[in-house]
Amino acid sequence: MTITDPIAAGCECCRPRRGFLRALAGLGAAATLASRPGPAMAQAVPERPRYSGLVIDCHGHYTTEPPAMLAWRKRQIDAINDPAQSPSPSSLKVGDDEVRASVADRQIKLQTERGISLALFSPRAGGMGHHIGNARTSLDWSIVSNDMIHRVATLMPRNFVGVCQLPQTPGVSPKNCTAELERCVTELGFVGCNVNPDPSGGFWTDPPLSDRFWYPLWEKMVELDVPGMIHVSASANRNFQATGAHYMNGDTTAFMQFVTSDLFKDFPTLRLIIPHGGGAVPYHWGRYRGLAQDLKRPPLSELMRNVFFDTCVYHQAGIDLLLKVVPTDNVLFASEMVGAVNGIDPETGHAYDDTKRYVEAAAISDADRAKLYAGNATRIYPRLAARLASAGVTP
Amino acid sequence: MTITDPIAAGCECCRPRRGFLRALAGLGAAATLASRPGPAMAQAVPERPRYSGLVIDCHGHYTTEPPAMLAWRKRQIDAINDPAQSPSPSSLKVGDDEVRASVADRQIKLQTERGISLALFSPRAGGMGHHIGNARTSLDWSIVSNDMIHRVATLMPRNFVGVCQLPQTPGVSPKNCTAELERCVTELGFVGCNVNPDPSGGFWTDPPLSDRFWYPLWEKMVELDVPGMIHVSASANRNFQATGAHYMNGDTTAFMQFVTSDLFKDFPTLRLIIPHGGGAVPYHWGRYRGLAQDLKRPPLSELMRNVFFDTCVYHQAGIDLLLKVVPTDNVLFASEMVGAVNGIDPETGHAYDDTKRYVEAAAISDADRAKLYAGNATRIYPRLAARLASAGVTP
Repeated sequence: MTITDPIAAGCECCRPRRGFLRALAGLGAAATLASRPGPAMAQAVPERPRYSGLVIDCHGHYTTEPPAMLAWRKRQIDAINDPAQSPSPSSLKVGDDEVRASVADRQIKLQTERGISLALFSPRAGGMGHHIGNARTSLDWSIVSNDMIHRVATLMPRNFVGVCQLPQTPGVSPKNCTAELERCVTELGFVGCNVNPDPSGGFWTDPPLSDRFWYPLWEKMVELDVPGMIHVSASANRNFQATGAHYMNGDTTAFMQFVTSDLFKDFPTLRLIIPHGGGAVPYHWGRYRGLAQDLKRPPLSELMRNVFFDTCVYHQAGIDLLLKVVPTDNVLFASEMVGAVNGIDPETGHAYDDTKRYVEAAAISDADRAKLYAGNATRIYPRLAARLASAGVTP
Repeated sequence: MTITDPIAAGCECCRPRRGFLRALAGLGAAATLASRPGPAMAQAVPERPRYSGLVIDCHGHYTTEPPAMLAWRKRQIDAINDPAQSPSPSSLKVGDDEVRASVADRQIKLQTERGISLALFSPRAGGMGHHIGNARTSLDWSIVSNDMIHRVATLMPRNFVGVCQLPQTPGVSPKNCTAELERCVTELGFVGCNVNPDPSGGFWTDPPLSDRFWYPLWEKMVELDVPGMIHVSASANRNFQATGAHYMNGDTTAFMQFVTSDLFKDFPTLRLIIPHGGGAVPYHWGRYRGLAQDLKRPPLSELMRNVFFDTCVYHQAGIDLLLKVVPTDNVLFASEMVGAVNGIDPETGHAYDDTKRYVEAAAISDADRAKLYAGNATRIYPRLAARLASAGVTP
C-alpha cells in the first residue's frame, strides 16, 4: 500500500478543505457573512455570528467502499466452508486514486457543503457482520476493513480520523479483540473503536456489556485511553430491520445495561458513546430517571460521567429534545453520513442526515454549540488532538 | 365466581367515581375552578377552561393481583414438568372484596387523584410469560388472567374495561389464540387484546408481525372489530432489562415491521397500538420518514391509518415531542399506571407516570386534548362505547 501526502501534493480531494481552513482562520466566516443579505442596519437584533470553528462529525462509516474491498469480502464469505480458499488480508489491492475517489463525491463533498471539518471514520457498521464465519473470519475482515480506513485517513488526514472495527465473534471472549485494537491505535493512529453489543446479529446470545466477559476489552480501552461507540452490525434476525429497529434497540439496550450495572465503578475512566441520539433514551428520559430511582441505582447524572450520545437524530424536534434533556457535555455532533438515511426531507428541502442544520437551529448557546461541534469530541477522544495537529488542523 | 352490581350497592371502591360523575356533568369542573385562586379580573388572558370530559387511560395492567392469583401461577409453573399437578383455571378462588381491595388503594385512588375516568385494563404485561411452559400452560394462565380482569371490570365497570391476554406460545400459530380472544370479546365484554410480538421473551424466534404466521389472529381481530396493543412480556434474555429495554425494543421493532410490510394492505381495518409513546419512533420521526422514503415504502401518513401510539412517556419534553410530530388522531392518552415507573420525580414533585399533567401542560388545543383523552379511544376501540353506556358512563 502506498501512502502519499495529499496536502503537500495538493491533490483534488483536499481542495475543498481549503475553504474550511480559511474558515478556521476566521476569514471564511467573515466572508460568508459579508456576502449574505443582512438585516437593515436600523434593526436592533443582531444575527448570531456563524460558528467558524472546527466541526467534528464523530460518527461516519465507510459506506462507499471500493468494489475490490467488497469483492474481497464476498470471496471470504464464499470460502467459509473451505478455509483454504479464504483470501489473505494482504491480497486486497486498491490504488490510492481509487481510495480518494471512493469518498470524494460523497463524504468529502457533503462535508464541504455542510461545513463539517472532518469525520471520525470507521468501517461500515452493517458490514462488520460479526455473526458470519468464525473468529478468524472476523479477524481477517477487521484487518482489511481497518487497513482501508487507515488508507482513507492517511490520504485525507484533514477529513478523516480512524475508528476501528473489532474482530468480535459470538461466544468468543472480546479478549481476542485487544491485539487488533492496539494495532489500530498505536500503529495506525486510530482514536476509538466500535463495540458491537450483539455479535450474534440480532439474537443477543452473548452476555450484557456489564458482564466480566467484556472486561478484557474495557481494560485495553482504558489502557489505550480510547472510547468506544456501541454500535450493532447487520441483523440476521428477520424481526429486526437494521437501521430502524436493530440499531435503535442496540442503543437502548446498552443504556439499560449501564443503568443496571456497576460497570463504571470498575472502569471509572471508560467512555462509551451511544449513537443515534441514544436510541430511545432521551425521548424517555423521565422513564430512565424513574427506573434508576425505582431500581435503587445512582441517578443518571452519575452514569453520564461515562456515557455520551451523538446527534444522529434526523429532524429538528428530536434534536431539540436531545439538547433539552441531556447535558450538553454528553452530546457529540454526528451525522452518520453517508449512512442510514440518504434522502431529502420534503418538509425541509434538505437531507435528513444534515444534522448540522438542526444543531444550528437549536436554542442553545454558542458556547454549547462549540462543545457539540468540537470541545466534547476532543475531550472524549484524547488521541484526537494529536491527530489533528499532525494533519495541520488547529481547533 | 359471584358478581354483584357495585354501583347499586354503593360499595366503597366506587365512591370516588361520584366525583368523576359530577365532573362529567360539568359540575365538578366548575366547582374546581371556582375554588382556585384565579388571575385578577383586570387581566385580559383567560385561564384555559379545565377539561371536564371523559379521560380514558388506554393502557393499564393488573399489577396488583390478589396473592391467590400469583400463588396459582406459581403452582402452575412448579408443575410444568408434571402436568398432572397443574392447577385448573377454575381452582382459583378469590372473593369479590379481595378483588375490589386489590385496586382500591392503588389504581382507583390514583385515577381519582389524577382525574382519570377509567382504564382499559389488561393482565400484567410482564406476567404473561408466554415463553414459560407450552401452549396449554399459556392457555390456562390466560384464562385465569382474563377471568380476573373480567372480575375487576364487572365489579367496577366505571373504572375498568377489559383488554385480554392471549395464550401465545413461541413457535405455535397464533390461530390458537382466536378462541380465547373470541371468548373475552363476546362473552366477557372485552374491547381489545394485547399481542406479544416476541412470545420467546427476548429471543425473537417467531416471524415478524407482518408474516402470514400471524394472519389468523389479525383475521379474528378484524372480524371482532377489536384493536390490539403490541406489548412484549418479561424478558428471559439477560441482555434486556424489561421495562427500560425489552419494552422499548418491542415497540420500535414492531413499527419497523409495519413500515417494511404490506400488512395493512391485507388488513385495512386492523388497528394496532404501539405503547410507551411508540418506543423510539417519535424521537426519530425524521429517520422513519426518511427510511420509508429510501426503502420505497409509502409515507408514514399512510401507515398511520392503522397504527397508534399512547402517551406513556414520563416527562414533559417527551410528551411535547410526541404531540408535535405525531398527528393527534394517532395518540391515545395512557399512563400504564400502576406499572413500569412508580416513583416521584424530584424535578417536578409529581409521579413520573402522572402523564395527565404533561398532556395538560402541552401546547395543544382543547379539541385535540379531548381527542387524546376520549375521542380517539372510542374511535379505535369501537366496542368501548357500548361498555361505557352499559356502565352508565356517558362521554
